[in-house]
Amino acid sequence: MTAPVPRKIVNDPVYGFITIDHPLVFRVISHPYYQRLRRIQQMAFAQLVYPGAVHTRLHHSLGAYHLMCNALNELRSKGAEITAEEDTAVKIAILLHDIGHGPYSHALEQTLIEGVHHESISLLIMQKLNQQFDGALDLAICIFTGKYHKPFLHQLISGQLDVDRMDYLTRDSFFTGVSEGVIGYDRILKMLTVHDGELMVEEKAIYSIEKFLVARRLMYWQVYLHKTVLCAEKMLVTIIRRARHLIRSGEIVTAPSRVLNYFLQQQEPVDIAQHLDKFCQLDDYDVMGAIKDWTGHPDKVLAALCRMLVDRQLLKVKLQAEPVSEEIISAQRRALAEQAGIGVEDAACLVFSGEASNTTYDPYEERINILFKDGTVKDISQVDNALIQHNLSRPVKKYYFCYLNPAAAPALLQGRTC
Amino acid sequence: MTAPVPRKIVNDPVYGFITIDHPLVFRVISHPYYQRLRRIQQMAFAQLVYPGAVHTRLHHSLGAYHLMCNALNELRSKGAEITAEEDTAVKIAILLHDIGHGPYSHALEQTLIEGVHHESISLLIMQKLNQQFDGALDLAICIFTGKYHKPFLHQLISGQLDVDRMDYLTRDSFFTGVSEGVIGYDRILKMLTVHDGELMVEEKAIYSIEKFLVARRLMYWQVYLHKTVLCAEKMLVTIIRRARHLIRSGEIVTAPSRVLNYFLQQQEPVDIAQHLDKFCQLDDYDVMGAIKDWTGHPDKVLAALCRMLVDRQLLKVKLQAEPVSEEIISAQRRALAEQAGIGVEDAACLVFSGEASNTTYDPYEERINILFKDGTVKDISQVDNALIQHNLSRPVKKYYFCYLNPAAAPALLQGRTC
Amino acid sequence: MTAPVPRKIVNDPVYGFITIDHPLVFRVISHPYYQRLRRIQQMAFAQLVYPGAVHTRLHHSLGAYHLMCNALNELRSKGAEITAEEDTAVKIAILLHDIGHGPYSHALEQTLIEGVHHESISLLIMQKLNQQFDGALDLAICIFTGKYHKPFLHQLISGQLDVDRMDYLTRDSFFTGVSEGVIGYDRILKMLTVHDGELMVEEKAIYSIEKFLVARRLMYWQVYLHKTVLCAEKMLVTIIRRARHLIRSGEIVTAPSRVLNYFLQQQEPVDIAQHLDKFCQLDDYDVMGAIKDWTGHPDKVLAALCRMLVDRQLLKVKLQAEPVSEEIISAQRRALAEQAGIGVEDAACLVFSGEASNTTYDPYEERINILFKDGTVKDISQVDNALIQHNLSRPVKKYYFCYLNPAAAPALLQGRTC
Amino acid sequence: MTAPVPRKIVNDPVYGFITIDHPLVFRVISHPYYQRLRRIQQMAFAQLVYPGAVHTRLHHSLGAYHLMCNALNELRSKGAEITAEEDTAVKIAILLHDIGHGPYSHALEQTLIEGVHHESISLLIMQKLNQQFDGALDLAICIFTGKYHKPFLHQLISGQLDVDRMDYLTRDSFFTGVSEGVIGYDRILKMLTVHDGELMVEEKAIYSIEKFLVARRLMYWQVYLHKTVLCAEKMLVTIIRRARHLIRSGEIVTAPSRVLNYFLQQQEPVDIAQHLDKFCQLDDYDVMGAIKDWTGHPDKVLAALCRMLVDRQLLKVKLQAEPVSEEIISAQRRALAEQAGIGVEDAACLVFSGEASNTTYDPYEERINILFKDGTVKDISQVDNALIQHNLSRPVKKYYFCYLNPAAAPALLQGRTC
Repeated sequence: MTAPVPRKIVNDPVYGFITIDHPLVFRVISHPYYQRLRRIQQMAFAQLVYPGAVHTRLHHSLGAYHLMCNALNELRSKGAEITAEEDTAVKIAILLHDIGHGPYSHALEQTLIEGVHHESISLLIMQKLNQQFDGALDLAICIFTGKYHKPFLHQLISGQLDVDRMDYLTRDSFFTGVSEGVIGYDRILKMLTVHDGELMVEEKAIYSIEKFLVARRLMYWQVYLHKTVLCAEKMLVTIIRRARHLIRSGEIVTAPSRVLNYFLQQQEPVDIAQHLDKFCQLDDYDVMGAIKDWTGHPDKVLAALCRMLVDRQLLKVKLQAEPVSEEIISAQRRALAEQAGIGVEDAACLVFSGEASNTTYDPYEERINILFKDGTVKDISQVDNALIQHNLSRPVKKYYFCYLNPAAAPALLQGRTC
Repeated sequence: MTAPVPRKIVNDPVYGFITIDHPLVFRVISHPYYQRLRRIQQMAFAQLVYPGAVHTRLHHSLGAYHLMCNALNELRSKGAEITAEEDTAVKIAILLHDIGHGPYSHALEQTLIEGVHHESISLLIMQKLNQQFDGALDLAICIFTGKYHKPFLHQLISGQLDVDRMDYLTRDSFFTGVSEGVIGYDRILKMLTVHDGELMVEEKAIYSIEKFLVARRLMYWQVYLHKTVLCAEKMLVTIIRRARHLIRSGEIVTAPSRVLNYFLQQQEPVDIAQHLDKFCQLDDYDVMGAIKDWTGHPDKVLAALCRMLVDRQLLKVKLQAEPVSEEIISAQRRALAEQAGIGVEDAACLVFSGEASNTTYDPYEERINILFKDGTVKDISQVDNALIQHNLSRPVKKYYFCYLNPAAAPALLQGRTC
Repeated sequence: MTAPVPRKIVNDPVYGFITIDHPLVFRVISHPYYQRLRRIQQMAFAQLVYPGAVHTRLHHSLGAYHLMCNALNELRSKGAEITAEEDTAVKIAILLHDIGHGPYSHALEQTLIEGVHHESISLLIMQKLNQQFDGALDLAICIFTGKYHKPFLHQLISGQLDVDRMDYLTRDSFFTGVSEGVIGYDRILKMLTVHDGELMVEEKAIYSIEKFLVARRLMYWQVYLHKTVLCAEKMLVTIIRRARHLIRSGEIVTAPSRVLNYFLQQQEPVDIAQHLDKFCQLDDYDVMGAIKDWTGHPDKVLAALCRMLVDRQLLKVKLQAEPVSEEIISAQRRALAEQAGIGVEDAACLVFSGEASNTTYDPYEERINILFKDGTVKDISQVDNALIQHNLSRPVKKYYFCYLNPAAAPALLQGRTC
Repeated sequence: MTAPVPRKIVNDPVYGFITIDHPLVFRVISHPYYQRLRRIQQMAFAQLVYPGAVHTRLHHSLGAYHLMCNALNELRSKGAEITAEEDTAVKIAILLHDIGHGPYSHALEQTLIEGVHHESISLLIMQKLNQQFDGALDLAICIFTGKYHKPFLHQLISGQLDVDRMDYLTRDSFFTGVSEGVIGYDRILKMLTVHDGELMVEEKAIYSIEKFLVARRLMYWQVYLHKTVLCAEKMLVTIIRRARHLIRSGEIVTAPSRVLNYFLQQQEPVDIAQHLDKFCQLDDYDVMGAIKDWTGHPDKVLAALCRMLVDRQLLKVKLQAEPVSEEIISAQRRALAEQAGIGVEDAACLVFSGEASNTTYDPYEERINILFKDGTVKDISQVDNALIQHNLSRPVKKYYFCYLNPAAAPALLQGRTC
């Protein structure tokens, strides 16, 4: 026997086993920046409705890495040229694609670090790791930023059929128990191909792709934008904004976590690149720790929101096809203000509305190319008898309306939750 | 402890356990007519492509019965009035809904018993059993034939959301391994409700229903109408027609099975009601036994078709959006006839074309009613942002073209298959 | 892109996808001898108790082939040297390991072809195929017969941890729905290793191996030797023996299938090597066709047994720890003979007893070697705190007693089953 | 239709759907004490090895409640008398059986609240809830404490075959992906019966019970007592002890969470009954928040342990059959102390040993009674050919040895982790 390659096998309830067999991949996974993702839940407050949905960003990244390994094997077996360096680089890029997520991922994105998208932070962190690793991530970064001359490698990370989406739909559907969200990821992977340097799927995958888009549509409306989940996540955003508003108004609101406190106390949006080290210490525990602490805060509104979130006694919520009129919102706020003895502006933290939207498939922005046996290429919305048609290309908007029942307000604002 | 109710538990890989706990249901299941369904495969020759798809009609019927038990429990828990008699009757009706299927189910339907649909035979058999059981099936038959005054009971057996469909999609998807065909049957069952005596689903089931229709569409094109499956099943039909043609032309073609032989030797379509006893002895074994026997028949065409089916060396097949022109078919037949030294008419058994069609959802024929919280009822194609729209209501037609490669013909018609 | 390798993907509900990517493997699978396995059920009459257990020998062989592909990849990644020729040869050997099974596999083994074990026939068929394939199976046969100088290759096909067992336990457990039979086949595969040319498992697999042996024990007593399954299979054996007895006594018993008839009519056990062609035409359909035909046979005993099996109205059966005394058996036979008006010898076909046995693990015959990190090797029964100990090495025997209720006999022997 | 019963359906990836349909059960689940269990992971640091194992105590309690619903239905269908009040009471008792768990469940049990077992706290909390609910939990508490005159109801909550064990084995095996831990919970439930007021299983469940015990054994050694998991959990205990030691020595160690701080600062073990309110505010977030905070603590040892746990750069660990000698431990401590410039006593926080043990089945303490068809009752270890025998009744002990590599110590104790 020749010398065995060192490798590690990780149990995954979704895929069975995930194999790690490259030293650089080991180093990335072992790094504290990556391990931090253990403490960021993938689906924020979806667990308030789907109690199983407590899986982490680390788990999702590992899963996407596993699908990437499979996708690369498939493409190679069909003749796509992928060098050993490219292989490792694209695997590292997918492992790190979500490294820039902060506490509660999308739910607090652009709120905690005002106006900054997680992908920008992912890139900053990758660059920082690259310094520590003496340039070993150069190619991974080049592929991640879409500058590499083989576009299909980038498309595997970020595109209509990327392994990121395939993993999160599969994994979220698995952990929520919403079996209808199941996609045939393994079949789609088997049908991937490269044509003119671009990622495509073979003709016989058409129905699987349709199924994939319909499953995504279902997951959006049934899970990600479930009205209770939406409500809890908007309450979370309101809590952070309320805290920051109070601070900027000169009141004392302290988060028990030093790093979280740092970000909250700034009067202006911070330059994240200057504070990357601090950002990399933040996770769900800092935010939930603050929320638990603030359940006793003197500001009645902040305390009430925190207690409601901790005890899962949420605002009432409606989700509807039409926007909520300003009159209704104002009237409800005034009623609450009066009943609870708070200002109308304060009441706006307990009565608010907004828009949720989702597009099933937009052929203008994002193409899923089908490669036919005769060599022609068509978008999935252009094939014969397409299920996915123009009517699905416009975003569907729904409007949420969250409000505190005025009758329940006094007790709640006094600090009793049951 | 009071006296326990006798009951039997059957292991089912799809649902876990199926419970049988009523004496009349026991009697029906134990009857030889029902046991015959063990010998009729649910999916005919789909197993030539999906080797796991060898489950039986008996298994499907038991599965549909299990879903019926669950559906009735759900509806009852929502306040629907279902008497103990109705409960047993509708369970027996679903157990027997497919009892009229003959060998290879749909593949030979209206071929072996010319022009007769399996549902008519199911009814005849139910009536015959009813005599043996002294009228115990009166109510089951009344519900089965749609004459009962509670339409939702019939709709559970036969309708857009019946448990028959739910079981076959779930089961066929399970045994083929085509996981994309999975429907959230358990969720749909939980959302069933009765309104104005009709079966409906609650508003929050909309996405599950869409998913159900898309899964069905996928199963049709990917499995039931898979071109290789289609080809094998058309070859089976051709074999029976060829045998009958030879017999009616005065040649000797004998099936080793006495009952099958009886049906084949008739010069005219038989009156099935007169020969129900014989029909109830027929199953896949009779037909496959004949096919195996005829691999050595003097008629070269019949023998070749039989050998090809037994050895899974099928005709070539194309599936396309446009009909195959008569010229192409004729030319191919003539080429084959010449090459193989057979008549053009004989060649028509080895070169043929036809049409396969499927409708994703036809709101005119079949309504899926959504009951909204405010009491309004809308068809699934009429809800906001519907995925299922008019464009999906027309049948999609595809055209198959099966043919023997002329170059391969001589050897095949000489009796060598490899 | 370089030229893609031709390959075929088969859906398998158990493993997802099975990939076939070698021309010789294609040829073997396409051969009529291999396709015949589609018509032999893996578990004979287990389906009378577990209705899902209708999967075929072909499906099992494909599954074992799939596990072999995985096992070879694992071993190679750990440094085992396996040449491309060995790789293909061992895959073909596992594909063909069960090719010698006849109708109803184990249930009729050594009964239909008297005294011959299926493995001997597998070897004969492999040799015959090897002639057709001009020696391409030389190495496969050498490995199959255990003569190759790398014993681990043979052990993968036939040994305590072979992929045959792993597949049949996994597959049978899947299709019966007896989830307790599930083994962690994927984990065991990941733990396989080669040491001194022998197949072993790594230390950390100990609990998985224990689980594997316990699952096997459970499957034997709960499924394979389930008393109803046992009874049906013994009735099948009795039918064939009765038919042969009648024939050898000069009575006319004809099977509708020509090849089955050939084997039945011989006065002496046949030399199977001389009639391999005929054997390769036999499958379940021939035997069940005969049984259906004989339900109308003038010999009352033969006809009754056949009707009972067809209609699943089986003999009563007891399974017990002690042998059934000759007195009880004789008394029961005499009672039946008298009641039914048949001879005592005839009654022996309807009242009989025998022994079923199973050994959980016999360390003398079959070793499962554990390779410890320090290089030592121990048998699984020798590790610390072993679950699997000497007490489990003796075969457990149970005794079945099948009998016809004398009260039910007259009607049954008159030809009425319900 | 009569008025529908209000009910709520919760998606569970393990069981599909969990139904809640009783107002009192709703009230319990909605209570902040119950909702707190969302923030306590079921398996503490098992997720460092099995990344999917992040499910919560709330999820486990809901799952056990679901199995209880099924078990009660089964027993009732077999004639066991269970009143509506008993039904609700036993469901509430199982929902609350783990309500007394604190942060990181078993890992910190008796450490954070010194010397107090979680079941005692569960009872205190149930009594407190009972006051709030005006005595509605009287019967639940009576059953929970084993004082009710129908012992089988208590045995369903706490006994060898309780639904607690069935759920945690099933759920932990599901979320870790260790499929070998799967037990046939549904089959065992179907085999439960009541005899002389005691919970038993029917004879045909013997193999399932054996499988259940073997699966539990496997889960213990492979998961719960996995050496890396063990190491991380012992580090957690050491951190809390170190913090308390420092505090009791007069140094300042403050937890950012007020309630956690309260418990840490006490000089003596607290009377938990007096501080139940504070206890009910504690969860994983308080402890992890403190650990993150202490990564910067001036005490080098505390800080190092916290950083190592946060970054998953754990102590090295060995698990062996023999105790680790005091000499080896002392030598290693001295070496570390010298290398790192800390005291030998401090080094004891970074070099320590202990014992882990597990008993597969102890028939003296815990009986699993098998009810045979003839009415006799035998313990599972007394049946014929038992797998589970006396040799498995002694606890198996293993000894762990956790230590910091002296070479790595200086950097770590300086505050750098990579």
